[in-house]
Amino acid sequence: MNNTNSKNIKSLGNWMHNLMLELYPICRSLAGPGNRESLFIIKKHIPIDILEVPSLKKVFDWTVPKEWSPKEAWIVDPNGKKRAVFSNNNLNLVSHSVPKNEEMDLSELLPHLYSLPAQPNVIPYVTSYYKEDWGFCMSEAEKKSLPKGKYQVFIDSKLEIGSMSLGEFLLPGESKKEILISTYICHPSMANDNLSGVVVAIGLYRLISQLKYRKYSYRFLFIPETIGSIAWLFHQDEHEIKERVIAGLVLSCIGNEGLFNWKKTRHGNSLIDRVVQLILKSSGVCMDFSPETGSDERQFCSPGFDMKIGLLSRSYPGTFSSYHTSADTPDKTPPNALEGSVDCLFNICMGMEVENIKYQRINPYGEPMLSKRGLYNNISIKKEEGIINSSDIRAHLMWVLNFSDGDHTLLDIAEKSGLDLNLLYKAAESATEANVLKKLLVSDID
Amino acid sequence: MNNTNSKNIKSLGNWMHNLMLELYPICRSLAGPGNRESLFIIKKHIPIDILEVPSLKKVFDWTVPKEWSPKEAWIVDPNGKKRAVFSNNNLNLVSHSVPKNEEMDLSELLPHLYSLPAQPNVIPYVTSYYKEDWGFCMSEAEKKSLPKGKYQVFIDSKLEIGSMSLGEFLLPGESKKEILISTYICHPSMANDNLSGVVVAIGLYRLISQLKYRKYSYRFLFIPETIGSIAWLFHQDEHEIKERVIAGLVLSCIGNEGLFNWKKTRHGNSLIDRVVQLILKSSGVCMDFSPETGSDERQFCSPGFDMKIGLLSRSYPGTFSSYHTSADTPDKTPPNALEGSVDCLFNICMGMEVENIKYQRINPYGEPMLSKRGLYNNISIKKEEGIINSSDIRAHLMWVLNFSDGDHTLLDIAEKSGLDLNLLYKAAESATEANVLKKLLVSDID
Amino acid sequence: MNNTNSKNIKSLGNWMHNLMLELYPICRSLAGPGNRESLFIIKKHIPIDILEVPSLKKVFDWTVPKEWSPKEAWIVDPNGKKRAVFSNNNLNLVSHSVPKNEEMDLSELLPHLYSLPAQPNVIPYVTSYYKEDWGFCMSEAEKKSLPKGKYQVFIDSKLEIGSMSLGEFLLPGESKKEILISTYICHPSMANDNLSGVVVAIGLYRLISQLKYRKYSYRFLFIPETIGSIAWLFHQDEHEIKERVIAGLVLSCIGNEGLFNWKKTRHGNSLIDRVVQLILKSSGVCMDFSPETGSDERQFCSPGFDMKIGLLSRSYPGTFSSYHTSADTPDKTPPNALEGSVDCLFNICMGMEVENIKYQRINPYGEPMLSKRGLYNNISIKKEEGIINSSDIRAHLMWVLNFSDGDHTLLDIAEKSGLDLNLLYKAAESATEANVLKKLLVSDID
Repeated sequence: MNNTNSKNIKSLGNWMHNLMLELYPICRSLAGPGNRESLFIIKKHIPIDILEVPSLKKVFDWTVPKEWSPKEAWIVDPNGKKRAVFSNNNLNLVSHSVPKNEEMDLSELLPHLYSLPAQPNVIPYVTSYYKEDWGFCMSEAEKKSLPKGKYQVFIDSKLEIGSMSLGEFLLPGESKKEILISTYICHPSMANDNLSGVVVAIGLYRLISQLKYRKYSYRFLFIPETIGSIAWLFHQDEHEIKERVIAGLVLSCIGNEGLFNWKKTRHGNSLIDRVVQLILKSSGVCMDFSPETGSDERQFCSPGFDMKIGLLSRSYPGTFSSYHTSADTPDKTPPNALEGSVDCLFNICMGMEVENIKYQRINPYGEPMLSKRGLYNNISIKKEEGIINSSDIRAHLMWVLNFSDGDHTLLDIAEKSGLDLNLLYKAAESATEANVLKKLLVSDID
Repeated sequence: MNNTNSKNIKSLGNWMHNLMLELYPICRSLAGPGNRESLFIIKKHIPIDILEVPSLKKVFDWTVPKEWSPKEAWIVDPNGKKRAVFSNNNLNLVSHSVPKNEEMDLSELLPHLYSLPAQPNVIPYVTSYYKEDWGFCMSEAEKKSLPKGKYQVFIDSKLEIGSMSLGEFLLPGESKKEILISTYICHPSMANDNLSGVVVAIGLYRLISQLKYRKYSYRFLFIPETIGSIAWLFHQDEHEIKERVIAGLVLSCIGNEGLFNWKKTRHGNSLIDRVVQLILKSSGVCMDFSPETGSDERQFCSPGFDMKIGLLSRSYPGTFSSYHTSADTPDKTPPNALEGSVDCLFNICMGMEVENIKYQRINPYGEPMLSKRGLYNNISIKKEEGIINSSDIRAHLMWVLNFSDGDHTLLDIAEKSGLDLNLLYKAAESATEANVLKKLLVSDID
Repeated sequence: MNNTNSKNIKSLGNWMHNLMLELYPICRSLAGPGNRESLFIIKKHIPIDILEVPSLKKVFDWTVPKEWSPKEAWIVDPNGKKRAVFSNNNLNLVSHSVPKNEEMDLSELLPHLYSLPAQPNVIPYVTSYYKEDWGFCMSEAEKKSLPKGKYQVFIDSKLEIGSMSLGEFLLPGESKKEILISTYICHPSMANDNLSGVVVAIGLYRLISQLKYRKYSYRFLFIPETIGSIAWLFHQDEHEIKERVIAGLVLSCIGNEGLFNWKKTRHGNSLIDRVVQLILKSSGVCMDFSPETGSDERQFCSPGFDMKIGLLSRSYPGTFSSYHTSADTPDKTPPNALEGSVDCLFNICMGMEVENIKYQRINPYGEPMLSKRGLYNNISIKKEEGIINSSDIRAHLMWVLNFSDGDHTLLDIAEKSGLDLNLLYKAAESATEANVLKKLLVSDID
């Protein structure tokens, strides 16, 4: 169930990387034409609905921002040289900058120029979402080289009443209970943060939608960070959503190579936390929930909702040097890393699909005789590599046979044994076919 | 109570080692004359009943095997040289081999020859209990040296309807609640696995049977591994046995020197687990229950029984190089190691006898004045070795005086303090004599 | 609330050290004029009541000792040299020595001479409280140099019916629930053990008494060790005291530099244990309760009282080389260390004052928008030092905003976040002023 076809995955990796390259040049923000253009491209591959939330609408403590439509922007230095040209790099212009066409002295301009002294060759990503302001971003090297004198500042942009766009798709399963996959589309021209989240979510959709059987429904969100999740939550029924969404993963910075990172839900030990912890045993680490930093899990886990949603990343937001800079380019998120992320996510979802199954021994007294059922060698000789060897299916079989007492779920057994959840499921299914186990009805799915 | 006479123990060690040497040459298997001969020798030292379970009887998912009576076996190579002669070493013949007298080519013979390439000079121990088959075992060196040509294969053995023999003795105590000591008698000519278990169980019996007072009854089992425990369990009342047997230890590979290993019961934190963990604090390690490997604890802990029985060994089965080979000889299990194992087991039993006692302070306000009762020096001077010194009886006294509040058992106090359970018992008894504590009735013994 | 004025603290340190120098020469014991003189000096700085408990009164299992009034004592060696002169060093005379004026041979004298072979140049502190005896203490070097011959032993002391003096003051707060600060006054001429406890308790009183608001009342005890706390407890109502005193700290050996040590209450995880553990996170260690050694917490935590009282020290009693010797001099307890101890104690008390406050989000859905309330920058740029930075007030704010759900106390949030309890309180109060949180009534204060 969890072995995706490795050739498919390989081509899926390249396919995701190409999709990322297509989305990379578009200037996204909280609301505006760049976001809409991105959602139209996404919609070609996953049949999302696009919901429009009107500008200035109050959503809980927040207000939906105006649409921002940047066209061109630059500054001209005293020597006539154009600098920080928006059409060269989206990051050159502070996001949501108001229009400007004005001559000013360098000293007046400097408070509006942003750079990173510790990383002198990259352009930082700066936003001014909730205060009407303007600014330019450039490398520290360029900023230091600016000559004194008069500068022409030119920003051709609009901040207008319109709407903020949210993308959403529900892939139905046998149950109406949902697993939520949420990622954000508000970042311009940065690959890991967060086009990786966008293409990995689509990659996961491609695999899950092909399954013949899904216990759970899967809801995919492509929304602006913070204000997008707040606006989406605003339109849900608080009690119904907590009932319906049994677990969720926010995807962020999930395109680079290296270990995975799971930031636990606010509950800390919910089913999704336990399943992810098992799946990441040798491929990642888990950290406790914290409201200080992160992404939309902070909104989903605000005390009024307190949903069982965590954050899956490969580099936790803010902890890698190219974060929020022009150095966050697609070559940092190669196809094989994107593939690995989809594979991990798929394993997590498959783990969620089977974790609460319970089996019961038909005859619970002593061990069943495996050899008469072809499940064990008849000739017994010491293994050369030593008797303790948990890598084979026999180990998985012994565990499900002993702990299938009607009390332990597959997840419980996986945690006790340290064995792979999905292989335990396979072993239990074999034993069920061999009439040694029976599967119990699980009541917690509607 | 726990200080066995060290001279007795010393002679007990030699005595056990001699008994092992007497049992070593006998060819045991699941059922047959070798097992019966061994039980008769055992019966000289512990008054066991010998129960016979008929061949082919269904016991839960298993079938009792036929009796196996090997007489002689060998192969003759093309040069007329006899090899793998059964009467030279029981391990040369695959256990439960059917009779054979046939000439065959080396190529036909080879699939029936067993050796260990990684240990080229030892003979492996191989069985074919549940499939009628035959085979020989030899060193990898010898196997490699076999010349091509015609071989004569000769096996004079019988597989006949008869019975499987189980040895059992109940040493009564004040209560009908039992502690089960189970070990297995099915292995031919191997010392640590498992004649060590047999002689250590008898050694323990010798010490415990001499006690003037025993709270618990002690049941000793000497049975074939797996099928023996399953057959024994088959003849018990499922509910009554779970009530009656409050704890148990399976003894396996307990004759070598080195740390002890306790494989916990399926419950993980039952009283026997807690007591053994305390006793082994500086002499062993504990591992969690696992149904993958081990010995009869897997049957006692199958979900239908789920008894509080773990496995005590010094080398966990399968983890030492001489395991299941001709290298597992009595010199690897010297008298002092056998003595140490009996001493450890005796301490565990004594710990079980006292662990649930509760005491209560007669006047619980402030510390009792120890000096007026001769329990403390009147002159107080700083100790040269520092004030913190938990090795003396005063430390044990202070702990029982503070925590004898009617809630804490001696086991609780031992766990909190890290002090020796049996010394805490002594301290509490002194304080009871000094009228500072009173012993509370414990209700959980019938 | 927890930032004491550092200049006050500095002068407080010197002030405490000077007070210690004033108390140092006085010869204290369990009962007698030295104790009374010390309490009169203490009373100048904290308005204690002095309670007198009659000699020979039975208090629980103990008897109040007679008053001991030493005047002068020495021995004269065969050469006429005076040695172990009491008026040179209080420690030269075994505490509670009976009067003596007698000539004797060195061999008769030696059993009454105490020294520390491992520390040959210091005089040990020796007592004989509960057995009428006598003795002298000297350095091992001096003891070894004593010539053979006749010695004159002279002790001018009285052991008379009188009373034992206890000092006690209750500083009232809004609630009648108390925090108990207990320290002992029975040690002569030793600085860390335990004049440090006396002056630090007074230093704490000076800070706490200046607070405009105190939730709790604070009770200060200055009593002889063991018999003093037992006598004090004897005069309390057992049930009322357990209700009234919600927590307490015994102060011992708290004047030296270095890490703090908290010996937990017998409960192990009571509120005071949790608060101290947080406060000491980077400045100390916690150890589990043990009745073996320590100070008066052993009486407060005897099973009949079982109060939530632990021991705060900087060097756990008995674990430093100058302990109970003439080397425990005031230069080992410098003003800055005394200041640090008062600061730590004050932070603990302030933590206790706020730990159980709960707040609730007024609108619990999503995060509140901080920027519109001036709690967050409007321009968002990556922090140079990395996004994860828990040292600023924003981190504290995010935690109280997420976990103020009516369930979590400030203590819970501090434990989850690892952030400073008193700064979390500040952040929560700011958010309350900004109308984002409301403070909930806490019911567990009468």
